[in-house]
Amino acid sequence: MKTLGAKIIAIETGMVKISCERNEGLTQQHGFFHAGVITSIADVACGYAAMTTMPEGAEVLSVEFKTNLMRPADAEKIIATGKVIKSGKNLVFCEATITDDQEEQLFATLQGTMFCIQPNKKE
Amino acid sequence: MKTLGAKIIAIETGMVKISCERNEGLTQQHGFFHAGVITSIADVACGYAAMTTMPEGAEVLSVEFKTNLMRPADAEKIIATGKVIKSGKNLVFCEATITDDQEEQLFATLQGTMFCIQPNKKE
Amino acid sequence: MKTLGAKIIAIETGMVKISCERNEGLTQQHGFFHAGVITSIADVACGYAAMTTMPEGAEVLSVEFKTNLMRPADAEKIIATGKVIKSGKNLVFCEATITDDQEEQLFATLQGTMFCIQPNKKE
Amino acid sequence: MKTLGAKIIAIETGMVKISCERNEGLTQQHGFFHAGVITSIADVACGYAAMTTMPEGAEVLSVEFKTNLMRPADAEKIIATGKVIKSGKNLVFCEATITDDQEEQLFATLQGTMFCIQPNKKE
Repeated sequence: MKTLGAKIIAIETGMVKISCERNEGLTQQHGFFHAGVITSIADVACGYAAMTTMPEGAEVLSVEFKTNLMRPADAEKIIATGKVIKSGKNLVFCEATITDDQEEQLFATLQGTMFCIQPNKKE
Repeated sequence: MKTLGAKIIAIETGMVKISCERNEGLTQQHGFFHAGVITSIADVACGYAAMTTMPEGAEVLSVEFKTNLMRPADAEKIIATGKVIKSGKNLVFCEATITDDQEEQLFATLQGTMFCIQPNKKE
Repeated sequence: MKTLGAKIIAIETGMVKISCERNEGLTQQHGFFHAGVITSIADVACGYAAMTTMPEGAEVLSVEFKTNLMRPADAEKIIATGKVIKSGKNLVFCEATITDDQEEQLFATLQGTMFCIQPNKKE
Repeated sequence: MKTLGAKIIAIETGMVKISCERNEGLTQQHGFFHAGVITSIADVACGYAAMTTMPEGAEVLSVEFKTNLMRPADAEKIIATGKVIKSGKNLVFCEATITDDQEEQLFATLQGTMFCIQPNKKE
């Protein structure tokens, strides 16, 4: 998060929003946000969203995620909104959208599965 | 690449290897490489691998990729090996593995689709 | 479609709904719809949805799709709703949900990329 | 399996092969195997492969899978080879290839996650 300069800007049960400002270290040759950066903040937003549905002390690990990149992320700031779609005892399904600051342009989507380690348990 | 401190360590037609050393900015709370970092270097390895099969001047954009995370990436250095599985006129299918420095422990795999913009053409 | 006994029940620009009734050939050991059946009708719904945004005579091929299975599809009938998220010249991004007949229970989601072959062109 | 006319042709620990012959009900407008059929037999091959690594009586559920379709599956018979990549207590990661009868032409790949329900336990 620190490396990306990302900030949590909203938290609700099952939903977390993260913003990230453009800087040279995060963009590719054309000045667009790199696919890896987009995925990173979307994954983190989903992870935090998953945690809002878990008992305190639980840990969340990403099992898998997929990113679809729809158009170049050409913006001063991007917003990743992670949402819990289904929360089970072990597995949490999440989706994220990555948009511009106004949440008007959709740059990418992510679908992912998180594994939840309940407090006082180890896999 | 610079932000990640990543380096290309091997290039062949259809295959590129990238290494990345552990540092605090790239790891999560337990000191393991972050899923977003793993995905970033795997995506970059696939992108470069795709370019080795393209005419000079072609550009490669990631359309989508999926990362499966098998075990915590607990290593001093990780290696992403990107390979072209099928190269078409427009689309290139790639796969990557992310391993430890010895390429013995498999931490994650990535499957992705790249879109190729031929030189002197714009989508 | 015939093998699955599936029927198109709604078509709009960028959206197609398909229904499929439970029968023995489509279910697994517990009587739930098989993951492959769910994926098949979701893929078909996305393909038709993509076609509604294409010039007449265009063909649509699935490049890739991912299915997340959230809960057992235990229903007499399932509905796959395919939607176009972004339509480009070559690539169309689609998403589908698979629900029960009332569209209340979400069984699965699919995210996919379609490749469009314009009329009078061959890849 | 019966609906698809699919047959298990090889089983080893961590690997299962399934074959499926072309017939009208399984192909799309050009006579190629439908993407949904390809995915179905690949998913089943992965599921059985996962079971070979589990205690007797365990059940395996598909959590998610992704199919990449590389070229039209134009063959009299297709073979899906499912392999376990990593087997954990709860989650099993698998990959499958879908090829022609000679296993020379690669039509598609699938990457998936299975959830294992140990005997005498319910999720």
